[in-house]
Amino acid sequence: MIHLTRRERFNAAHMLWNDKWDEQKNIEVFGKCANKNWHGHNFELFVTVKGDINKDTGFVINLKDLSQLIQYKVIDKLDHKNLNLDVDFMKGKMTSTEVLAIAIWEELDEGIAKLGATLHSIKVQETENNFVEYFGQ
Amino acid sequence: MIHLTRRERFNAAHMLWNDKWDEQKNIEVFGKCANKNWHGHNFELFVTVKGDINKDTGFVINLKDLSQLIQYKVIDKLDHKNLNLDVDFMKGKMTSTEVLAIAIWEELDEGIAKLGATLHSIKVQETENNFVEYFGQ
Amino acid sequence: MIHLTRRERFNAAHMLWNDKWDEQKNIEVFGKCANKNWHGHNFELFVTVKGDINKDTGFVINLKDLSQLIQYKVIDKLDHKNLNLDVDFMKGKMTSTEVLAIAIWEELDEGIAKLGATLHSIKVQETENNFVEYFGQ
Amino acid sequence: MIHLTRRERFNAAHMLWNDKWDEQKNIEVFGKCANKNWHGHNFELFVTVKGDINKDTGFVINLKDLSQLIQYKVIDKLDHKNLNLDVDFMKGKMTSTEVLAIAIWEELDEGIAKLGATLHSIKVQETENNFVEYFGQ
Amino acid sequence: MIHLTRRERFNAAHMLWNDKWDEQKNIEVFGKCANKNWHGHNFELFVTVKGDINKDTGFVINLKDLSQLIQYKVIDKLDHKNLNLDVDFMKGKMTSTEVLAIAIWEELDEGIAKLGATLHSIKVQETENNFVEYFGQ
Amino acid sequence: MIHLTRRERFNAAHMLWNDKWDEQKNIEVFGKCANKNWHGHNFELFVTVKGDINKDTGFVINLKDLSQLIQYKVIDKLDHKNLNLDVDFMKGKMTSTEVLAIAIWEELDEGIAKLGATLHSIKVQETENNFVEYFGQ
Repeated sequence: MIHLTRRERFNAAHMLWNDKWDEQKNIEVFGKCANKNWHGHNFELFVTVKGDINKDTGFVINLKDLSQLIQYKVIDKLDHKNLNLDVDFMKGKMTSTEVLAIAIWEELDEGIAKLGATLHSIKVQETENNFVEYFGQ
Repeated sequence: MIHLTRRERFNAAHMLWNDKWDEQKNIEVFGKCANKNWHGHNFELFVTVKGDINKDTGFVINLKDLSQLIQYKVIDKLDHKNLNLDVDFMKGKMTSTEVLAIAIWEELDEGIAKLGATLHSIKVQETENNFVEYFGQ
Repeated sequence: MIHLTRRERFNAAHMLWNDKWDEQKNIEVFGKCANKNWHGHNFELFVTVKGDINKDTGFVINLKDLSQLIQYKVIDKLDHKNLNLDVDFMKGKMTSTEVLAIAIWEELDEGIAKLGATLHSIKVQETENNFVEYFGQ
Repeated sequence: MIHLTRRERFNAAHMLWNDKWDEQKNIEVFGKCANKNWHGHNFELFVTVKGDINKDTGFVINLKDLSQLIQYKVIDKLDHKNLNLDVDFMKGKMTSTEVLAIAIWEELDEGIAKLGATLHSIKVQETENNFVEYFGQ
Repeated sequence: MIHLTRRERFNAAHMLWNDKWDEQKNIEVFGKCANKNWHGHNFELFVTVKGDINKDTGFVINLKDLSQLIQYKVIDKLDHKNLNLDVDFMKGKMTSTEVLAIAIWEELDEGIAKLGATLHSIKVQETENNFVEYFGQ
Repeated sequence: MIHLTRRERFNAAHMLWNDKWDEQKNIEVFGKCANKNWHGHNFELFVTVKGDINKDTGFVINLKDLSQLIQYKVIDKLDHKNLNLDVDFMKGKMTSTEVLAIAIWEELDEGIAKLGATLHSIKVQETENNFVEYFGQ
């Protein structure tokens, strides 16, 4: 059993806002992140998979396949997009880094299994000071 | 004569769009950066000043003063903002990294002179692959 | 259950020295780190907490609260200080990175619980080549 | 129980190739990595050990000893070498990052035990986008 | 006048060797870099261009065009290659970082002029400790 | 003419203090950096030399020679030392990054000339947010 991690990146806009609350409460909780005109980040995504090594290739998973899967299921939908408005798998959700990481897990879990490995963790880095990691429930 | 550089950071949304052009032309030129729902970045700003060393302090400029100036004149206006909508000194301008760097120069030049040093360059890093530098005309 | 990590930084002086040993023995064990006139580092601190996501915020913990707690309990006491002489929670301890990480855990554990999350790990990076991680006993 | 990680680096050439397959199949599976004239990387190696803290030193392990062990058993054999041709402990193996990480584990496991700690993981970073981690079986 | 820099990366093998010298002299001068079985690096390439800002785009040069030019003229020829054996524009040359930087300048200078900007510098980073910069003669 | 840069690192303690001033004035000017019990940093040093390429080697300067010179004249004197107390070439000087950069220039200038190249700049990075560069007078 060995772990392999692939990093990908995307640049996106978002806003933290809870429609159930008034503006004052939103600003109290989310601070500058509640700016109604949006702000944005260079996000870094680390997808870690695990599995046994294929004797013929020396690989857990072919990085070409893993990278294509992440590109198609996640990056194409997030890069240069608005997380609140443009992304099918974020519809109706808060766009916190935590919620985003779980949503990305759900996008990738099945496809990675089909490639013969197991999804181990999703790490999303929002700034050089903040990141979240999700390991499934 | 010695150079000193201070790095600051801000997270902002923006869009590249020229109102004189139709949508097709904008997408042709600006690609994904023309997404009407905005996208965003973690920008890094490097402000380089130059001058002679003060014998009593060993400093070209007191970093505390320089950092406060950048905070007040630039970061407070850009951080968690929309470069196209929220920023007084970007009104009516393209929000390319090039134009942003020159606008930041104009915000800081005079204040740095008052602190006794000379502004040497503004570097704005938009992603880990792209940055611009402006040295004044 | 999701993990969230906050990075903070501090610059401090220290010395590795065991009073029970003579100078020769200290130099033999600690090498250059036993310099009696002190040396120092830019330390990086990574505090990882875990918990369930709050439905209203999308957060495990509000980063503003976590950051304030770390600032008040740890950074204010360590930054621009001497780890051997200035820090109440390091009194009478070796100032190795290992011991420092455990001491920081003890400073933060209770406060993070009060914020509704669980402290998962403390990582302290002393140089780009060395770091330690503590996960509680 | 605490974890300590030491980073070391080496620059090496390699090629991904399975002798059981013809050229077409090798290129199909390994892509550009099957270039017969070799390519190479700046590899980063992170060795993580764990154990209890020695009261007299505050250390899990003396970094000087750990670094010397890694140097002698691993770096001297890999740095500025060809992973397919020059390295005794890679003879007859695929030179994927996965296989390399396991081979490095086997080189270091015993020596770290003799230094009084336990090897926890080997991380090998091949590019800024790809790394693997091995935790023993 | 403003400067814009694009970073690209490539992984390559090479060897430092002067055919006019015997083996002893080569090892004396080039040390481990003279290993006849090759070694390799993750090279980083920084291409800096300068020019005036186009009023309609806010750009010195369209990064899409610059990136495509670098890809076609340089990266496709260097990535996952052997600098001594595979690269047309390095034939008969020493593969030091210095010589490589100048050769890349010659590959790109004309194409950048055709895109309406001026090549300002080529920076090639071989390891995190060493890089060279060439500004034209 | 081409530029080559070598990075080296050292960890040191220091304090900013002007003996001509009382404590209040020192704290007013130097803030936390005036802590009498010292603080410290992981400094990064970038030495840039320039010259013509030697036809036989492809080098401006042999990195082995440059690195040894920097080690002997600078790093051995600064690493794990106190800049105010331990360093011959800092005696009686303020230990600001600016003054340190100039002092390092003076230590290296002549030796680099003897190796056949010209010293172009000294860059000293004190934290990830602050660095200075000196290009000679």
